Formats: sequence, C-alpha cells, structure tokens
Amino acid sequence: MLAEIITIGDEILIGQIVDTNSAYLGQTLNLNGIAVKQITSISDNRDEILKTLHEASQRASIVIITGGLGPTKDDITKKTLCEYFNCSYRFDEDVLKDVENIFAQYGKEVTPTNRMQAEIPALCQTIRNHNGTAPGMWFDIKNTVYVSMPGVPYEMKNMFERQVIPKLKQRFTLPHIYHHTLLTQGVGESYLSDLITDWENSLAALNIKLAYLPSPGMVRLRLSTSGNELEILKKNVAQKTKELHKLIGEYIYGYETFGEHKKSLEEIVGTLLRNQCKTIATAESCTGGYIAHLLTRLSGSSDFFQGGIVSYSNKIKTNELDVSEELLMSKGAVSQEVVEQMASRIQKRFNTNCSIATSGIAGPTGGTDEKPVGTVWIAIVCDNKMWSQKFLFGNHRERTIQKTADAALNQLRKFLEK
Amino acid sequence: MLAEIITIGDEILIGQIVDTNSAYLGQTLNLNGIAVKQITSISDNRDEILKTLHEASQRASIVIITGGLGPTKDDITKKTLCEYFNCSYRFDEDVLKDVENIFAQYGKEVTPTNRMQAEIPALCQTIRNHNGTAPGMWFDIKNTVYVSMPGVPYEMKNMFERQVIPKLKQRFTLPHIYHHTLLTQGVGESYLSDLITDWENSLAALNIKLAYLPSPGMVRLRLSTSGNELEILKKNVAQKTKELHKLIGEYIYGYETFGEHKKSLEEIVGTLLRNQCKTIATAESCTGGYIAHLLTRLSGSSDFFQGGIVSYSNKIKTNELDVSEELLMSKGAVSQEVVEQMASRIQKRFNTNCSIATSGIAGPTGGTDEKPVGTVWIAIVCDNKMWSQKFLFGNHRERTIQKTADAALNQLRKFLEK
Repeated sequence: MLAEIITIGDEILIGQIVDTNSAYLGQTLNLNGIAVKQITSISDNRDEILKTLHEASQRASIVIITGGLGPTKDDITKKTLCEYFNCSYRFDEDVLKDVENIFAQYGKEVTPTNRMQAEIPALCQTIRNHNGTAPGMWFDIKNTVYVSMPGVPYEMKNMFERQVIPKLKQRFTLPHIYHHTLLTQGVGESYLSDLITDWENSLAALNIKLAYLPSPGMVRLRLSTSGNELEILKKNVAQKTKELHKLIGEYIYGYETFGEHKKSLEEIVGTLLRNQCKTIATAESCTGGYIAHLLTRLSGSSDFFQGGIVSYSNKIKTNELDVSEELLMSKGAVSQEVVEQMASRIQKRFNTNCSIATSGIAGPTGGTDEKPVGTVWIAIVCDNKMWSQKFLFGNHRERTIQKTADAALNQLRKFLEK
Repeated sequence: MLAEIITIGDEILIGQIVDTNSAYLGQTLNLNGIAVKQITSISDNRDEILKTLHEASQRASIVIITGGLGPTKDDITKKTLCEYFNCSYRFDEDVLKDVENIFAQYGKEVTPTNRMQAEIPALCQTIRNHNGTAPGMWFDIKNTVYVSMPGVPYEMKNMFERQVIPKLKQRFTLPHIYHHTLLTQGVGESYLSDLITDWENSLAALNIKLAYLPSPGMVRLRLSTSGNELEILKKNVAQKTKELHKLIGEYIYGYETFGEHKKSLEEIVGTLLRNQCKTIATAESCTGGYIAHLLTRLSGSSDFFQGGIVSYSNKIKTNELDVSEELLMSKGAVSQEVVEQMASRIQKRFNTNCSIATSGIAGPTGGTDEKPVGTVWIAIVCDNKMWSQKFLFGNHRERTIQKTADAALNQLRKFLEK
C-alpha cells in the first residue's frame, strides 16, 4: 500500500520552519504497513495544489495533505480541494461546536472568520480537531483516499493517530512492515561495507533491504522487510542480525526498533551504571567537558555522575591531577602515561568506580609529525581494570571531540557489559 | 530566479531522519535572491530519480539534489545522473586526493570502494568535498544548472556555502539582497515585539522586512531588504539598526551579516578574553561541563581557558570547591551563597582572571515549592568584581542547560566590554 505526503505552505519553501510533519507521517504510516512513495512541498498556490493532488493520486492510493487550512486569506487548501473534487460546501455543526469550545477556553467569542471553519466540502467526512479551529477532511473518491489536516504539528498528530490511522486500517488491508536498526561505533561506512559484502548479498533471498545511515563517529545499519506475517519477518531479521553479530559484533553497541525510543550511547552507559550501582568521574583535556555534558544532559544522572575536572592547561593537569611535570616534558600531554595517570587519579580523588580520561590534539593547530592533529589518547578505569588506546580522528576539531566522546563511552559500555 | 530541491533517500520517506537540509537550502537560496518552487523527497530508485529530475527542470532553472552519493550499493544518484545526461565517467585526480586526505587523517589506506568516488560524470564540474569522500557535481545543461551534493548536513552545507552559492552568483544575475541580523539574549519574542512595535511599523517605508528567529534563550532579529544598489540597502539597514539599539540595546549581544561567519556568544567572549589577555575557569553544577565544552570547542581556546571543575554532587562541591557542608545544609546547593563561593574558589584555585559558576535544578525532578524546576543561580567573577543572579528557566532540562550557558556567557561579555 502506497501513500504520498503533500505539505502546503510558503514557510517550508523559504526554510523558515523545518518540516517535521513529514518525518512523523512517514514513520507512522510505515509502522502501519503503508510505504511513502514521495513527499512534495509546495506553496499556497491553486495551480500547484491542483497539479500535485492529481500527480500524487496517480502514484498512490492514499494522499495525506497538511497545511493551508488557517482562517487567513493566504490559506487556500480547503477551497482548492472543493474545486479539485468539483463539490459545494456544507455547514458542519460539530465543527462549529469545536471552534466555539476553543474560543471559550480563551474567554472569547467566535469571529465570523473563524465561524467559516465550519463550512466544509460536501463530499468529505469531517475529522474533528480538538486542539485548533481547522477541521481535517477525509475524501474517499475513485478508490483513492485523500486526508487533509492542519500543519500545526500537535493538532495534526493528534488527529492522525486517533482518527486517521484507525480509519485507514478499516479501509485498507495492510501488510506488516518491520524495521530493525543496529548501531555501530568505531568503523567507517566503507570498511563496514567491505566486511559484510557476502552477508549483504544474502539478504535479498529473505526480502530484506539494508540501509547505511552514517553520522560522525558511528554508522547505523537498518534492516527493513515487509510481508503478511509479522512473526516471520521478525524471525528472518533476528536470524540475519545474529549472523551480522558474528561478523562485526565488536562494533555494535545497540539496537533501535522502529517507533521505539532511540537510545544514545551515553543513555546506554548511564543505564548500565545505574543498574550496576556504579559511579563515574571524568578528567577531560581535549574533550573539554563534553563527556561530562553528555552524561549530565541525561535526567537522573546524579545517580551515577559525581563530577569531573577539565584539565585543559598542563598547569591544571599537574596541580589538580598530580601529573608530574617531568612526565609532561618527556612524554607530552598527549601520551598513554599521562592519560592513564589522569584516569587513575580522578577515580581515586572523586572516589568513584569508573573514570574516563581524554588527552588529544583537537586542532587545527598543535600537531607534529609524530603526533598529528587528531591524535587522541583515551583511558578508562572500571573498578580495578585500566584500558587505554590511541586514536587518529582526523583534522576536524568538533568531530574529533565528538568521536573521542563516542569512543570513550563505547569502551566503557564494553567494560560494563562484560 | 526559481530553484527546486530534490532530496533522495529512503531514510527521509520512512521518517527515520527529519529533512533539515531542505530548510537550510530554502533559507540560503532565498537569502541570495533565489525562490524555491518545490521540494520533492524520493527514494533511491532509478525511475523516480529520472522522472523527478525531468519534472523539476521543467519548472526551475536551478535544481539542487542532495543524498544518495555514499560509496555503498543502495546509493545510486551518481549513476542515475550519468544516465540522465547520457554521459560517461571520467577519473578526477583532485577527488582522489581529497579521498586520500580524508583516509590519511585516520592513518588508513583508501579502499577500492572509496577510490570509486573519484569516478565522476564526464559532463560535470566537480565540487570538492573537504569533509567527506563523496564529491559534489555541477551540471550546466540546456540553460539549467543541476547541483548534486551529499546528504550529510555538514558536508553539504560547507560545499553549498563556500562553492555552490558563489558559482550561482556568477552564473545568474541575481538581485542584491541584504540581510543583517541582530542577536539578542535575555528577552522573549513577544516582549521584544511589544518594545519595538513603532520601529517595526516604520520599516515598510524603506522596504525592509523583519523576521523573528527565536531559539532557546535568545531571539535573532533579521532585517532583509532587496534592490539594485547595495550601498543604499546597507545605509538604510544601518540607520534602522542604530534606532533599534536605542530601544533594546541592553539585549543585543552581537550581529550577523549574511554570508559572513556567524559568531556564537562563546566566540565573542573568547575573542574578548584573548584580546584582553585574560584567562578563565569554570565551576559547573547544573550545566555539567557544557560551558567548558562551549569554550573548548573553539579552536585556540587554550589561550584563555585554563580548565574547570564539574561539581555535580554536593560531596564534590565540598571536597573540591570548599563549599561548607553547613552552607549546603542551610541554604541549599542552589543558592546565591553557594554559587558565589564556587565562582570565587575556582578563580583563586585555577589562578585565572575570570570565572563562571552555575548551580540549578535542571529537572525534571528535584524541584520544590520554594525552588521549582528551572531555578538556576549563576555567578561571574571578573578580576575583583563579582556578579550573581537567580533565573527561572522553565521545566525543559536541555533548554535550561542551554539558557544557563547563554546567560552566563552574556553576563561575562558585558563585564569584558565595560
């Protein structure tokens, strides 16, 4: 079953707002077994609306339209739908009641302009809006369903989930679509691709599609499949996931199942620390407080996060973390010895189970032949175990900070999961 | 001048990512005098790409395409563009160098898959990508310009601003559009609007448009005007800016001129510190390292940033910052006395000119009737001056952290500018 999404409004085309409605609609439709063929954003213009409605209905059985339903002159979606379906208006008393209710909440009388919201195309079924004045409209014409809703996200979402999805399920026989996403850290897209070529080729036999979704420091791998029996889809994906784990298990740090809350790496680490009643402190040089920020951004982080020291200058490394000046001279601040001392010292001083320490050259200056920009040392202490490793993260300062944090958190995750 | 935007990728249609690229492109094109006619999102499918390219080129002189340029099998944009323009491939040595540079930064060899990134359609001019392996492509065919770029936002934005916009300006005669943006902190959108009503009404006479661009803790005010003589546009905007300064000068912390580098508040503070040869340290509780992160994200921050302590737990406040247990008991961690002790102590201990200290209830739990969620105390020390203030930032955790950082940095800016 295919759907198209049409968003109407100048504010999207001039980039004044980011169109989050389409992502929401795409996700919700997919979860219900309806694939989105195309998303089209157009302005509040009669000709464009008529043309786009026609084209979309040629490609899909369901056309979802948002926007252009306000009471002001620039909004012409309702009028244009009437023209498209060549129908007259009828007055809907239920809609008037909804509008009156909204105005009553603000202690105001309904204006004539807003009373007009109750004039709706004769051919449509009304979709009530309990959070705003513009009703939604459901047209079922020549085997195509058209749904028009306001563009205000919270009005639209409420109508879509509570009224439109149930109506779509009643109207169409929908297949199951199943997505499962593996989260990987520490390996680039192309290396990953080389490692799993044979496995990737084997997916077609089970009608599973693979997508690579890269972001700085990590790649998400999404497996998607559809069919009539959800249990079989899940079983097939579970089998392929298991196989993949054998190939690249060391890089996989978590999973996302479509429609469920997406867990960040720091959230996974935070949950592990909390469940194991472990505490943590940070000693950060090149990440400059970023790891502490990631952890404390989580609500409830005071359960496990005690605090940290941002030892940016060498003087602070010496004064606050007892890193000897001699060591800083002989090995340099970006060295295994120094980062291990930092991790070990902060754990003892803040009296925690775990600690993370970072020291590196985020750049763009400060690199040498021996230690180019992007060289980072990370040390992790977890109870009485110490781990440290050198990384080369490239010459983009902000990405190096992000990648250092991801690599450190991922290593701590591995410790905690053992 | 009209443009169309085509975004290619299943991840947009299934709603796995929100398409922020289109809003960015729409905004940037508009600011340069190019209007967007339609935005179309389609999947990585040959037929759909060919059809959409054809249709877009019928409606606009500029077609901007993002996505589908990764090295993996699911990405087919480049191949399909070759087919669309009926051209062969050429090998671009410059692109290979860019790819090799990217890999060299990680100390890795270029894989055969990634070497293929240097195979590009013979008919295109290359748009170099210094932040990723997929080059951009510029086709100028039959009076239509097609630009294909990767979908990774920061790769795309960099290429678009630095290379594509200048090329479009060269290729087409665009009207002068002049934008000047004032950055304000510490005042809400509606309050601001009330303060400047008369001034706002006076803009029309000079053909200047005003846009409010709110984000957590700050509102940017963008003045936009267009015409044939740039000098007149600049003069008019400068006059209105001067008038605005008299009305709301206390809230304005900086300016942005479109196309010029956008200065963040921390960057303005960093420059002031550097120019005045002043150093700084942070003692953060509720911001959990975020202010240190904002400052150290700036390259060259070691010129002024010495380090900081994230004193998240009360134990760390006592042990590391000598905040007396008695004071924590009697006044609470979120109090003027505690935050002033933190600021004063970190300045002395890290031997800096300035310091910032924060303590607050970011939530969602931990609030009381007396100190609800969102209550934050900030203290600033600059040489021998101390400033502190209480804020109420509402019950959204991440926003409270952001607003606290903004308010603290803005106060420090005021100190340094005196």
